[in-house]
Amino acid sequence: MASAPFIPVIPAGGAGTRLWPLSRRRRPKFLLDPTGTGRSLLQQTLDRLVPLADGPPIVVTGAGHAEEVAEQLGGAARVLSESEPRSSMPAIALAAAVVEREDPEAVIGSFPADHLIDDVAAFAASVATARRAAEAGDLVTLGITPTRPATGFGYIECASGRGPAAGRPGTPSADAALPVTRFVEKPDPERARQFLATGRFFWNAGMFLARARVLLDALAEQLPPLAAGVREIAAAHGSPEYEQQLARTWPRLTAIAIDHALAEPLAADGRVVVVPAGFTWDDVGDFAALARQLREARPVRGGVRSVGTDDSDARVLGAATVQAISSRATVYGSTHRHVALVGLEGISVVDTEDVLLVLADDRAQDLAALVRDLERTGPEHLL
Amino acid sequence: MASAPFIPVIPAGGAGTRLWPLSRRRRPKFLLDPTGTGRSLLQQTLDRLVPLADGPPIVVTGAGHAEEVAEQLGGAARVLSESEPRSSMPAIALAAAVVEREDPEAVIGSFPADHLIDDVAAFAASVATARRAAEAGDLVTLGITPTRPATGFGYIECASGRGPAAGRPGTPSADAALPVTRFVEKPDPERARQFLATGRFFWNAGMFLARARVLLDALAEQLPPLAAGVREIAAAHGSPEYEQQLARTWPRLTAIAIDHALAEPLAADGRVVVVPAGFTWDDVGDFAALARQLREARPVRGGVRSVGTDDSDARVLGAATVQAISSRATVYGSTHRHVALVGLEGISVVDTEDVLLVLADDRAQDLAALVRDLERTGPEHLL
Repeated sequence: MASAPFIPVIPAGGAGTRLWPLSRRRRPKFLLDPTGTGRSLLQQTLDRLVPLADGPPIVVTGAGHAEEVAEQLGGAARVLSESEPRSSMPAIALAAAVVEREDPEAVIGSFPADHLIDDVAAFAASVATARRAAEAGDLVTLGITPTRPATGFGYIECASGRGPAAGRPGTPSADAALPVTRFVEKPDPERARQFLATGRFFWNAGMFLARARVLLDALAEQLPPLAAGVREIAAAHGSPEYEQQLARTWPRLTAIAIDHALAEPLAADGRVVVVPAGFTWDDVGDFAALARQLREARPVRGGVRSVGTDDSDARVLGAATVQAISSRATVYGSTHRHVALVGLEGISVVDTEDVLLVLADDRAQDLAALVRDLERTGPEHLL
Repeated sequence: MASAPFIPVIPAGGAGTRLWPLSRRRRPKFLLDPTGTGRSLLQQTLDRLVPLADGPPIVVTGAGHAEEVAEQLGGAARVLSESEPRSSMPAIALAAAVVEREDPEAVIGSFPADHLIDDVAAFAASVATARRAAEAGDLVTLGITPTRPATGFGYIECASGRGPAAGRPGTPSADAALPVTRFVEKPDPERARQFLATGRFFWNAGMFLARARVLLDALAEQLPPLAAGVREIAAAHGSPEYEQQLARTWPRLTAIAIDHALAEPLAADGRVVVVPAGFTWDDVGDFAALARQLREARPVRGGVRSVGTDDSDARVLGAATVQAISSRATVYGSTHRHVALVGLEGISVVDTEDVLLVLADDRAQDLAALVRDLERTGPEHLL
């Protein structure tokens, strides 16, 4: 069994624009419950991790969201607040530094706050495997076995001769930790197909485990000022000087994602292993992904209704009454408006008090451009 | 020049469901301005006819709409109100009977209240031609030269050897009145293509002219109780007994359209002629037709805005602010909501306070089924 304590870390930063107007600057994706479970994505993340933890998880979030985050967490986690967003590495490193001061050998595991994972038991088993690998001194990531040549995710390549089959869902084991060759950014469709054909690629779900000291020492090799900065801030944690120290040091930390700061360079050195995940996962990265989730859910989840009397299959989340004729569509209705759909195929409708979005799911990625326009031209209150 | 006085008649009944939720029971299509001209379809109809008339036009409308109709007309027409809807023949016949008592030789011309006609001068020229034909004692209809094998309109077949070319837009003439062989209901696409290939078919726009006495005498041959009934009601017009007479007689009149009551049987007897119209016309029969109107308008009409920075072409009617990415869509926004469109192709969005409709234009005909469901299940206030 694992001997080092395990402390989960949940970076909950950034608003994201790809679920706008469901998500807004003041109500980022992790505070939403986009599949109608009754718990926000952040709460679901915490629900999965608390039973595995040997101390309260640490949530690192923006100052603007700290209050609502604390409210949602209800005391089940510690909240560290960022005075400004610096991407994921400073957030994770600060949490690691706080943990390091309590127990340098403790294993931290960083998990995004806004992903969907269906099988909680399989998640627990995969994390247990990854903990053991982390105790051996490696940087460990969880790799998702790809089910399609997705172009919206990054990939993890493991050494030749081994493959995802070793860790197919339901059979995670300690020896399933595979050496990682490299991390690859989102590929085009052709490359994605090649990746799948080799059997050596996993989806990168942004989950990383390591002993706190191992992670910070590795960071100190790559980005000494960043490692030193978070250790300085952590040294003041719990003292009256903390806020002042944070305000002084945080803005000078390098804004960089953990993938670029640690995962990629360490993989090149053969110091990263991947544990094939025994669960299904989705980052709900856009309305196409969300529609897929709501559509594939069997049975239809509590908060989601299925509407349609003819050949229609409309999925509805929220208060709206929906009528559908010959429509395959997804409706997010936060108003009490009556929503009527005729002849739609793969359309998402988001009906809020101030914004109505109608989007073709196969163009869901283009929403980002629309929100960028809105950021430039306003009105600001819609963002 | 024409010697008999000309009195336009505008039957403005029926709510229709094919522009719901723009149109509602209490706000039928003819009261709307669906292309943003600044005048309702009824007002536009009146605007076209008043300059041609030798006395105030007569609008026949449902009791529930009489007040708003009178308000929109502002004294420019007489309003006869139906105690209940009985289709078009009783409405037109009652107006004819009222005119007949003033001058039996007067020519009445009946024009639907909710159609679009672009070229007012060409319309006036076609009506002038039709008046002369009506003075000769025929039932006269205006035939629209078909521009595509439409399946949503009825057709008028004229005798072989003549053809629409005789009356192509811009060249109406008195001798362009062609004997009608038959009226044909909406055809399937294959038949519609055959019709166009012959060069002997026109679209039936529901416009009929005849001397008042001629029309009522012909009706007396076909449906004696109907002709007698409207003549009885008209005899009381202007007297204190009118309302009582109307209430007693109107509900017993045969509910029938003028096409079935007069046009078809008289055409079979060779007593109908068609004047090829020198104008373009649309019945705006559904959201596909309306989208086509808003899209084809060159230049974009006053109340209609064109939105889209990339390859988008979104047409917007109403107060909504609209943002579009890669979208060909039509938005009817009667709220001040911000409307965002991504990747849509041939979609209409109707955003009202209590109902949101999202419809694929190529399935516009299916809206009727949706509204029928709503009529069955409610809620009533949305109809």
